[in-house]
Amino acid sequence: MEFMKIQHVSIAGAGNLAWHLALAFRECGITIREVTNRNRIAGKELADRVNARFVDSPSNLDPAADMILIAVSDNAIHEVASSIRNAGNTLLVHTSGSTGIEVLREASSNTGVFYPLQTFRKGTYVAFRNVPVCVEAINRQDEESLLDLGRMLSDTVMRINSEDRKMLHLAAVFASNFPNYMYSIAEEILKTNDLPFSLLGSLIRQTAAGAEGGDVFTRQTGPAIREDKNILETHLQLLKNHPDYQRIYNLISQSIIQHKEKDVKL
Amino acid sequence: MEFMKIQHVSIAGAGNLAWHLALAFRECGITIREVTNRNRIAGKELADRVNARFVDSPSNLDPAADMILIAVSDNAIHEVASSIRNAGNTLLVHTSGSTGIEVLREASSNTGVFYPLQTFRKGTYVAFRNVPVCVEAINRQDEESLLDLGRMLSDTVMRINSEDRKMLHLAAVFASNFPNYMYSIAEEILKTNDLPFSLLGSLIRQTAAGAEGGDVFTRQTGPAIREDKNILETHLQLLKNHPDYQRIYNLISQSIIQHKEKDVKL
Repeated sequence: MEFMKIQHVSIAGAGNLAWHLALAFRECGITIREVTNRNRIAGKELADRVNARFVDSPSNLDPAADMILIAVSDNAIHEVASSIRNAGNTLLVHTSGSTGIEVLREASSNTGVFYPLQTFRKGTYVAFRNVPVCVEAINRQDEESLLDLGRMLSDTVMRINSEDRKMLHLAAVFASNFPNYMYSIAEEILKTNDLPFSLLGSLIRQTAAGAEGGDVFTRQTGPAIREDKNILETHLQLLKNHPDYQRIYNLISQSIIQHKEKDVKL
Repeated sequence: MEFMKIQHVSIAGAGNLAWHLALAFRECGITIREVTNRNRIAGKELADRVNARFVDSPSNLDPAADMILIAVSDNAIHEVASSIRNAGNTLLVHTSGSTGIEVLREASSNTGVFYPLQTFRKGTYVAFRNVPVCVEAINRQDEESLLDLGRMLSDTVMRINSEDRKMLHLAAVFASNFPNYMYSIAEEILKTNDLPFSLLGSLIRQTAAGAEGGDVFTRQTGPAIREDKNILETHLQLLKNHPDYQRIYNLISQSIIQHKEKDVKL
């Protein structure tokens, strides 16, 4: 299928994701024409970094770019899209996991989503080739353009509709945000007792690597899956000064036990 | 300090940990003399594998070994230790994170703990050199013997008393068992929607690797730390058919938000 090769991109936003995408696009030879951002300092910094022009409002973006990428917080997508004037046929794309494509409907007739499934932090290198990119577009040609753009960056590029993308984002919260918080609780427990968090490094890595093959619940170890009531009781007791961690420990452990019993019944 | 070099070991237990330790000891040139286990088939299998004699009860273990290692479930340690007759001065050691050294008190005057901080599954290779080993003993010479034994297996060997070891085990539940359950929930969400779990591999690995440096809470990303109420609401709605996952999602998210506000106040 014939499609437009995306070569000139303008970006609204200068947060972590905007920053990483802008740099990754540049590495693939794509020109960043303009950057706009509510915070001028951050916006100019990114514009300078990628040799782009800074414009002070989305309404001043030149609609002649092949694509305008809206990489702002979910709550701001609609407002930014609405203020892009004369977008007309310009391909307007957002980068959010949990926002449907329809948020862009009023702003352009050609819209899409370009969602990299990874958490991004400024100053941390991301090997983009390993980051799955999920793509959606209202019309087929734009979809091809976004798939092509995705393949320039990553080895894994998939068409995913808005409904599935929301599910994927929800799963990513469980697979990444919540484990990170669990690590943080572990770190706090150790710090309080003057024990080095580095002791847990091998365990954390090994557990993450073990998930690779799927069927993760069969790999569950620990006192909950063994239904070891003495240890569960001891652990709740040790957490007596942290009622919130105590509740988390108890709820997750009970859920593991119930999940096990459900599995056995099937 | 002069200490006895541990060269001949007998083992009570044939579960995952007993199995991995027995093989690791053998690789270091240590002789496994005898194996005992309640389940005879599993016990004999391990004994055969490491060229040891199988004995049908702990009471028949030859107390002439340098060390008798009790690698059984926490609830059974006391019973197994009590039934080892004539232990007298034999170094009696258990491998439990959450059981104090005092559980062995009545069985021998020389007791210790040898606790490798890792989850073990049969048939899964473990690079023991990366597994921290925590050691405790009632008397100094035995402690030196166990430290020496630990160093034969691992690059990280530490003296840790029973109280700290319990904290370490609790932290390990948060760092490993709970993240694994989070992965398992993510996998279930994706499966239900015919999406491949492999999409999350890079994210899971990257999050685990990111914990390496400590200060993990500063790396927290996602809707909870951004206090993005719309997405939190959307996610709870998507989980409406999984009330237990909904409760976990809500409790962890609220805890992240509270933790953030506490950090800001400090």
